Amino acid sequence: MPHIALNSAEPGIRGLLRYRPQTARPLSELAEVLLRGPSTLTRGERELIAAYVSALNDCRYCTSAHSACAAAQLPEGMTLVEQVRADPATAPVPAKLKALLAIASAVAQSGHAVTTEQVAQAREAGATDLEIHDTVLIAAVFCMFNRYVDGLATTAPDDPAQYAVGAQRLVAQGYVAPLADPGHAGDHPR
Amino acid sequence: MPHIALNSAEPGIRGLLRYRPQTARPLSELAEVLLRGPSTLTRGERELIAAYVSALNDCRYCTSAHSACAAAQLPEGMTLVEQVRADPATAPVPAKLKALLAIASAVAQSGHAVTTEQVAQAREAGATDLEIHDTVLIAAVFCMFNRYVDGLATTAPDDPAQYAVGAQRLVAQGYVAPLADPGHAGDHPR
Repeated sequence: MPHIALNSAEPGIRGLLRYRPQTARPLSELAEVLLRGPSTLTRGERELIAAYVSALNDCRYCTSAHSACAAAQLPEGMTLVEQVRADPATAPVPAKLKALLAIASAVAQSGHAVTTEQVAQAREAGATDLEIHDTVLIAAVFCMFNRYVDGLATTAPDDPAQYAVGAQRLVAQGYVAPLADPGHAGDHPR
Repeated sequence: MPHIALNSAEPGIRGLLRYRPQTARPLSELAEVLLRGPSTLTRGERELIAAYVSALNDCRYCTSAHSACAAAQLPEGMTLVEQVRADPATAPVPAKLKALLAIASAVAQSGHAVTTEQVAQAREAGATDLEIHDTVLIAAVFCMFNRYVDGLATTAPDDPAQYAVGAQRLVAQGYVAPLADPGHAGDHPR
């Protein structure tokens, strides 16, 4: 049961976005720019970073929602998402993405945990400065979302199918559009 | 030295906001709504929560910047900020703020660390659900900013006077206005 009385029965971040529309707007815009805006990282790769960090932070709602979003946008689907969550070092992903996931893992611990060596390794594997920047910010943003969602003890559906349906809608509509349409706002997980 | 080549010599979050204006906008709007928007928590109290969490995360830039912003907006000034950073349990703040700071400290560890007892204690001390919500989100947001600023190894001025000057400008202009005015964008710390 959530720590506070929300104004809907919606789970996870959805209930929080509906509760506080003033903060929902910039939070959703931030997710849209980082996870879906123009980037040399694919949307699937960025959702994978979000899912991985959320798993490290043990946030069930965000891990499920962003794993589903990553799976929906990666050719290898949920199999790869699960391999990355189990161990990114041995998962069948390119060296660049592996190095970026290592940076994301450090960020989940602390900003100070990111090392010059990790950044050099990412650069050697072909990562640009903007990709490194966005990886650090995506990881940091999910350290926020995870704490927001769990710090208020929001609920999380058990059924993976619910997250898969939400991911399909998210892929089609993005993170901001549903906010402008209250009739659909409650239907997509983040 | 920052891990990536920024497009300015500005320290801390300022250099990052200038580097990536697409994410700077929602990040600044989020800070504006949470720290300066309509609320039953004073601006000084909200900046105090931001400074306290930043200190827990050992983020020198954010701790200095938000301590200065808190001091500038609290009647008791920097003395109280330092007492809270040293030990909120014994600092001379009202019971409600003390309970909210305890929740913020839990959020800095993990969302799962916030207990039903902590929330009940805040409520008994007079905190509303919205104040509890905003405290969790402010703490979570600074877990993000701290990781963003330190994860990219941005620089932080040593001189407290620089943060005090930035805080005066921030108090006058807010977090969003300077972004719309490139001539001043680099002048205020966050």
